[in-house]
Amino acid sequence: MAKTLDFFFFYGSIHTYLSVMRIEPLARAAGVAVAWRPFNLREILVEQNNTAFSRNPVRLAYNWRDIERRALRLGIPFQGRPPYPVDPELLALRVGVVAAAQGWCADYTKATFRAWFLDNKPTGIAEHVAESLAALGRPAREVIAEATSPATDALLKGATDAARSRGIFGSPTFAVGAEIFWGDDRLEDALEWATRS
Amino acid sequence: MAKTLDFFFFYGSIHTYLSVMRIEPLARAAGVAVAWRPFNLREILVEQNNTAFSRNPVRLAYNWRDIERRALRLGIPFQGRPPYPVDPELLALRVGVVAAAQGWCADYTKATFRAWFLDNKPTGIAEHVAESLAALGRPAREVIAEATSPATDALLKGATDAARSRGIFGSPTFAVGAEIFWGDDRLEDALEWATRS
Repeated sequence: MAKTLDFFFFYGSIHTYLSVMRIEPLARAAGVAVAWRPFNLREILVEQNNTAFSRNPVRLAYNWRDIERRALRLGIPFQGRPPYPVDPELLALRVGVVAAAQGWCADYTKATFRAWFLDNKPTGIAEHVAESLAALGRPAREVIAEATSPATDALLKGATDAARSRGIFGSPTFAVGAEIFWGDDRLEDALEWATRS
Repeated sequence: MAKTLDFFFFYGSIHTYLSVMRIEPLARAAGVAVAWRPFNLREILVEQNNTAFSRNPVRLAYNWRDIERRALRLGIPFQGRPPYPVDPELLALRVGVVAAAQGWCADYTKATFRAWFLDNKPTGIAEHVAESLAALGRPAREVIAEATSPATDALLKGATDAARSRGIFGSPTFAVGAEIFWGDDRLEDALEWATRS
């Protein structure tokens, strides 16, 4: 039976771009299945008084430079800093939760991060979400209606509770059972753990 | 002429243990000289409202587990979580600044982190500092007197100002000119950068 890696992530996280762009071929090569699990990181950061990062120009400048260097090293396209912060109303996340429930989260998430980083279309703007959905052949109006429904509230709460209960506090986080690995730079370690488990 | 890597670090930082234990052989193999540059990270964290980490049990638990896994992977001894936080009065740091000025910072710092992580002697306790100094053949009383003198205040301020002016906000940070790399997991990237510069 295939090993599985839980990929917990948030649509407003900048380092997550690197993982979204590279997790599939790496996991395939390792023989590991990936479960895409979007969750509301913002809620957990607020609970933990861990929101100062987004207002710290020194740390932000470093993180953008780190992403640029890592993208170059990993062969991932990077065209400069896209808009930040993004997904103010969590619309991108809500659609991601619907997509995860319906089995098309990987394609939706790749399209969303590509649009943000490469086409200057920040996540969470309704028009951008609709464009990404249309490009995937999904009925944008219906999907967005579902994403903003009470049923999705419940799905989102469940997804975030699952992350919190596993001690997750950042994005991306890769989980194999009780073992969690935070940060794109731990993806290889997590895949190795998954293959050994 | 040998390339140089500036190794900025703080005696109260837990991931710094990994770098202290492995930087010398890696740098030697890369043909890079290491400048050991202790600074007052605590002052910068306070300035940047970036102190919540040490009071966040979720992030602390993750970081200890990360260090444990990384130590195993890197072949560095780890015997469980040592006391934390440490160096309350910055005595270990002050002695480190004196040591850096006198050219014996590497040996002192290795002894200090080994005592903390492997001998259950947290950094910054006067008795532990004195023991580390004695083991290095340094006159403990004189060194501690110098470390707590106004001359060392000035050295420490200069060291911290240098870190701040380079955009450093964490420990360990490896710097090559204007390029900075934060975290033990960026040590290899930094050395590669140093050899190319």
